[in-house]
Amino acid sequence: MATAKQQKPTVNLVFTNHVFQALDEAVAAMNPSSVHVLVDVNTKAFVLPLLQAESKAVADAKVIEIKAGEMFKNLDSLTYIWKQLGDGNANRRSLLINLGGGVVTDMGAFAAATFKRGIAFINVPTTLLCAVDACVGGKTGINFNGLKNEVGVFRDADLAIVSTLFFNTLTSQELLSGYAEMLKHALIYSPELTKKMLAYDVTNYNPDSLLHLLEESVAVKQKFVDADREDHGARRALNLGHTAGHAFESLALKRKSPLPHGYAVAFGMVVSLVVSRMKFGFPSDVLNTYVGYVSRHYGAFEISCNDYPQLLAYMHHDKKNDSGDTINCTLLRAIGDVAVNTSVTDDEMTAALDIYRDLLHLP
Amino acid sequence: MATAKQQKPTVNLVFTNHVFQALDEAVAAMNPSSVHVLVDVNTKAFVLPLLQAESKAVADAKVIEIKAGEMFKNLDSLTYIWKQLGDGNANRRSLLINLGGGVVTDMGAFAAATFKRGIAFINVPTTLLCAVDACVGGKTGINFNGLKNEVGVFRDADLAIVSTLFFNTLTSQELLSGYAEMLKHALIYSPELTKKMLAYDVTNYNPDSLLHLLEESVAVKQKFVDADREDHGARRALNLGHTAGHAFESLALKRKSPLPHGYAVAFGMVVSLVVSRMKFGFPSDVLNTYVGYVSRHYGAFEISCNDYPQLLAYMHHDKKNDSGDTINCTLLRAIGDVAVNTSVTDDEMTAALDIYRDLLHLP
Repeated sequence: MATAKQQKPTVNLVFTNHVFQALDEAVAAMNPSSVHVLVDVNTKAFVLPLLQAESKAVADAKVIEIKAGEMFKNLDSLTYIWKQLGDGNANRRSLLINLGGGVVTDMGAFAAATFKRGIAFINVPTTLLCAVDACVGGKTGINFNGLKNEVGVFRDADLAIVSTLFFNTLTSQELLSGYAEMLKHALIYSPELTKKMLAYDVTNYNPDSLLHLLEESVAVKQKFVDADREDHGARRALNLGHTAGHAFESLALKRKSPLPHGYAVAFGMVVSLVVSRMKFGFPSDVLNTYVGYVSRHYGAFEISCNDYPQLLAYMHHDKKNDSGDTINCTLLRAIGDVAVNTSVTDDEMTAALDIYRDLLHLP
Repeated sequence: MATAKQQKPTVNLVFTNHVFQALDEAVAAMNPSSVHVLVDVNTKAFVLPLLQAESKAVADAKVIEIKAGEMFKNLDSLTYIWKQLGDGNANRRSLLINLGGGVVTDMGAFAAATFKRGIAFINVPTTLLCAVDACVGGKTGINFNGLKNEVGVFRDADLAIVSTLFFNTLTSQELLSGYAEMLKHALIYSPELTKKMLAYDVTNYNPDSLLHLLEESVAVKQKFVDADREDHGARRALNLGHTAGHAFESLALKRKSPLPHGYAVAFGMVVSLVVSRMKFGFPSDVLNTYVGYVSRHYGAFEISCNDYPQLLAYMHHDKKNDSGDTINCTLLRAIGDVAVNTSVTDDEMTAALDIYRDLLHLP
């Protein structure tokens, strides 16, 4: 089966808390015919003024403002961005700076990748989750027809400037949500990084030490993405915790009390590591240390055995599940030793959910 | 200035009048999870039934039908295609077959390039213009915000099956419109091909000889496209005749009697060759032979000196004109010896328009 052909990975990533200088230097080197900056209502209020004061490139830029939140990552917002670019006289040599979290960078990147068949864009993530996840890997897009990221392209940013400069406006919950993806990167990569991260309290972070951890963490994602741009094999390591995690997220939505994505992944990884222990003898000391960290910082997502049929149904319908009767999971033989596309039966998953409840002291 | 990064050129092109077999073999080799076929009202009526009768792949495919014509190459139609793909259970391993002229292939290609971040697609052009032009070069997109191809991406078809099989439903005008782009390819490439093409009457074509000419002609386009995927330099050879041609098209639209694109190019190339003669001594015998062919088959687009200010204004505002005070033209020193980005003054262009009128015996 021929599939979408993509460009080779060439993302330019800079890790710095000297964001203004990095941005102005990059824009000067790119010499665009015009600069446009995409913000949502939050980054417009809290981040844009800083950049307008300190960065010449942003001070001179035309501002495009969209509403904040996943529900506005849609065709209407995309159409608005395209129109604002056109009406703002953007041409093929223009530059779009995406200033925000994952919604802004995913949608801004897609708008830039398609406006006049592609203009340059720079991502400046303002949340930890975006810094560690959404701004690396070239996945751009919008939600459409009731489905997440139903429409988009693979396209790397010309530059992503990753910093911890704007994280002082984030809540502990937002920090922990991003940190769960960093924990995932550590678990699929190395015992050393895992140990370091499980000893770190992100809710009480130091800007420089967190920036350094971010750099290590993003390098892990980049490594898996480079090996498998289009998400058919090795890249599925990055799905660790996401099969159960997405099921928890869907159940929480059904209960009308949404669970932040990173929390769902943190809890989902408990299930993944339990199944990994059952099927591959994943070491119990690591499992217990991880569970302790999750319990301490994230609490627990409450489920009872009455929820199992619904959770199993969600896992069978996960978009990455194309293996028929069983549930397709990413598991670990040990830290850094990933087993993608592992089949898990309903009985095994049920047993793992029982153990999940025991470990997190749920009734 | 960093610009959109693109995949390397890998278009698969087949020239054959055994379309059904070629299509079924290709689809069998691709083994998609589902097949969807995009048609407009015309190709649904005149071409789809043939393919449904003779091609297993198309017989089993889900049909997506859009309205015919450039005015429907828009966001509404694109949205409809995305929705039909989703509702038809297309997934990342599905295939879209675009069956039609340039509107269907441009828009279907863009829909496929963006649905779930890119699915496979095959173009089956049904018009000469599409066969020679729109289905090669990776330019996909829609019109938006009042501008042609304002939104799109560069993405090659996984396969284009070029045939003359469906041309028996085309009018002489449609054949001549496509043939003008073939003449352009000949002029920017070789005296031999030019001579052969100026001796051929496309309105009285033989399916096999025209298919052979098409193959030679498309190879020329492919050569220039491969040298310059993103249209910054060498590819501008393909703009021969388009600066004056677009101005003629715009003027015709303003007069409310639209000129087919290929006719505009045929007339625009008369102007280009006249300017080429003035500035580079392009040989007069070739100019005269070409003018004779155009006069015989295409007639003339009528202009008077009262139209000059409007025509010059259009040429200054051509989207490929980024050279300031003068008009940016693609010219020829001789057949196959292209001078892109040549500055032409208003006085020179005015003189050329006078000569255009003389050559085509306009009052």
